[in-house]
Amino acid sequence: MRISILGGGGFLGRKVASRLAADGTLGGTPVTSLTLFDLAAPPAPSAPFPVATLGGDIAALPAAAIPEGTDVVFHLAAVVSAAAEADYDLGRRVNLHGTDAVIDACRRLARPPRVVFTSSVASFSGGQGALLDDDARQVPANSYGTQKAAAEMLLADASRRGFMDAVSLRLPTIIVRPGRPNKAASSFFSAIVREPLLGLETELPVPDAFAVWVASPRRATEWLLHAAAMDTAPMGLDRSLTPPGLSVTVGEILTALEQVKPGAAALVRRVADPAIAAIVGGWPPGFRPVRAPALGFARHEPLVDVVRAFAADDLDATRRERGLG
Amino acid sequence: MRISILGGGGFLGRKVASRLAADGTLGGTPVTSLTLFDLAAPPAPSAPFPVATLGGDIAALPAAAIPEGTDVVFHLAAVVSAAAEADYDLGRRVNLHGTDAVIDACRRLARPPRVVFTSSVASFSGGQGALLDDDARQVPANSYGTQKAAAEMLLADASRRGFMDAVSLRLPTIIVRPGRPNKAASSFFSAIVREPLLGLETELPVPDAFAVWVASPRRATEWLLHAAAMDTAPMGLDRSLTPPGLSVTVGEILTALEQVKPGAAALVRRVADPAIAAIVGGWPPGFRPVRAPALGFARHEPLVDVVRAFAADDLDATRRERGLG
Ligand SMILES: NC(=O)c1ccc[n+]([C@@H]2O[C@H](COP(=O)([O-])OP(=O)(O)OC[C@H]3O[C@@H](n4cnc5c(N)ncnc54)[C@H](O)[C@@H]3O)[C@@H](O)[C@H]2O)c1
Ligand SMILES: NC(=O)c1ccc[n+]([C@@H]2O[C@H](COP(=O)([O-])OP(=O)(O)OC[C@H]3O[C@@H](n4cnc5c(N)ncnc54)[C@H](O)[C@@H]3O)[C@@H](O)[C@H]2O)c1
Repeated sequence: MRISILGGGGFLGRKVASRLAADGTLGGTPVTSLTLFDLAAPPAPSAPFPVATLGGDIAALPAAAIPEGTDVVFHLAAVVSAAAEADYDLGRRVNLHGTDAVIDACRRLARPPRVVFTSSVASFSGGQGALLDDDARQVPANSYGTQKAAAEMLLADASRRGFMDAVSLRLPTIIVRPGRPNKAASSFFSAIVREPLLGLETELPVPDAFAVWVASPRRATEWLLHAAAMDTAPMGLDRSLTPPGLSVTVGEILTALEQVKPGAAALVRRVADPAIAAIVGGWPPGFRPVRAPALGFARHEPLVDVVRAFAADDLDATRRERGLG
Repeated sequence: MRISILGGGGFLGRKVASRLAADGTLGGTPVTSLTLFDLAAPPAPSAPFPVATLGGDIAALPAAAIPEGTDVVFHLAAVVSAAAEADYDLGRRVNLHGTDAVIDACRRLARPPRVVFTSSVASFSGGQGALLDDDARQVPANSYGTQKAAAEMLLADASRRGFMDAVSLRLPTIIVRPGRPNKAASSFFSAIVREPLLGLETELPVPDAFAVWVASPRRATEWLLHAAAMDTAPMGLDRSLTPPGLSVTVGEILTALEQVKPGAAALVRRVADPAIAAIVGGWPPGFRPVRAPALGFARHEPLVDVVRAFAADDLDATRRERGLG
């Protein structure tokens, strides 16, 4: 099985690459090659199969990013929410025209590959009161969500035409993200766990009662691997799925943090940020996914396990990366 | 009021241009200039205001198509359903990237214009059994509908960002279309009225019980003019509307034809066409629009009036155009 990861140098891209390298298989089939593509050639994990790495722009996708014979493409390359809001042209080029380029690369292959695309909860709106069913319409309140929703449609059509066999996962906000704060408007949802565990202060721009739809990196990685191997025949025209995330409040996240490291939540300072609140405030905090669980997407683990997994999987690397000894 | 019509040489574009020329006003405000843009410079109607005409490709939209000071843009340029299905690249370039070009042209203006976009019933699926509410999800079953649905999203986002003030109308199949059969999969819905009224035989590719969501050119033109002048404040993020068309069967269309010209329906021959049936068979034949009527979009006239209006407005011109004396 030949696999490409576009955005393979990003947070989830590296998680998926590590899992493939560790497992050596995907859906029970041995992995025979892995290509990692990102703006700069990503680091290759040590793996029991050859790994090629490649740098470039997804909107001008080099053919080598999806070589002939590719079975599975993880299409994760994206300009995230706050950055796409700040720079309309950049977001459109990467998130929308980048998806056109992926479609064109797949059309050129002799055999249509599975394409796993990461859409987002940010493609929905409705705000704090919303609790959405699988058939809810996407009425995005930001350019990132718009570009993701439009890309989902293009990928579904490309699947119908036989150019590929796509599964789009509307991922929840992933916590806890390692490394540093980034340009995603949702960055603080991870920072309020990560920074205190590092012994650092951090700012919370929304009230404690603010609710959010989240998933852990472990669970998201599982879902992406499941989407790569599942039977898509029951999906029909509708290639988009809302996997079963967790609906939690910021207060509940801080409680889980306290369970793992008592006293840590004291490092979180309340500093309202209306610009951030306006973006994340549009995202619905609750979904009732039925279709994805029925298609085998695993239910989410409890919140405290999410904090523990971060401490186990990513805390040391983050400390080293940030020179915090 | 300065107005541009993109696709101004097409069926609906010419109808809108004629109405503006006849009225001299839009929503009570005098029209001061009209620009007509299409692949080839469209003919200018004689009008009480200056009319500029311009040829070019919407995906490489010349600035003169939407000059500084433009108040209203009718964005009607499109590659229609069967053509977009036959040529993926052409449909994507015109229907999707053409819309990007319209957005960019509007961004350059000092004042965001009203943009009236023609989306389509073909952006929905569900087939003959479907009866859809305003909040139904678009799960298109063809590339044309996909490109229209994605364009709606981009225009809504551009409106949210203040680049424009868009209203997207998901038009029903428009009958009766004058001229000749065209590449729209829905062409036969008009042909079964037009051709017999011209004394010509025509083919019906679906059963008489086949149901379809239609509107007349007169009503569609009214809706487009209303969308150009209405207050969009109540629309919020959702810039798309399903105007109140008519749900009719092919048999009912033939009955209306018989009422207007007894014996004419005998010229319709039943010749099943699975390719055509597959495309139009995916479009839902019924909607329950609530939002558009509440926003002032006029209810539809009865079917027999549609046939009579065609005979009054377009039959002679079609006869001349086709050299049928
Ligand atoms: N992390 C989340 O909370 C979350 C939530 C919902 C959806 N998603 C989606 O999941 C995917 C992965 O998210 P992530 O958290 O790993 O994000 P990330 O920013 O860490 O990774 C995205 C990668 O895309 C790359 N990229 C950006 N522009 C590019 C271009 N022009 N050409 C090639 N590569 C380019 C970046 O360099 C980056 O490595 C993204 O599509 C994101 O939108 C993430
Ligand atoms: N007529 C219908 O039944 C119907 C139903 C739903 C939606 N619509 C939509 O309404 C609009 C008008 O429909 P119509 O029936 O007048 O169609 P039409 O085909 O008569 O008009 C479309 C016009 O767009 C022009 N065009 C095509 N490619 C172009 C390009 N690259 N650059 C510039 N112009 C280009 C064509 O030359 C044509 O004049 C279209 O957007 C159509 O998709 C029509």
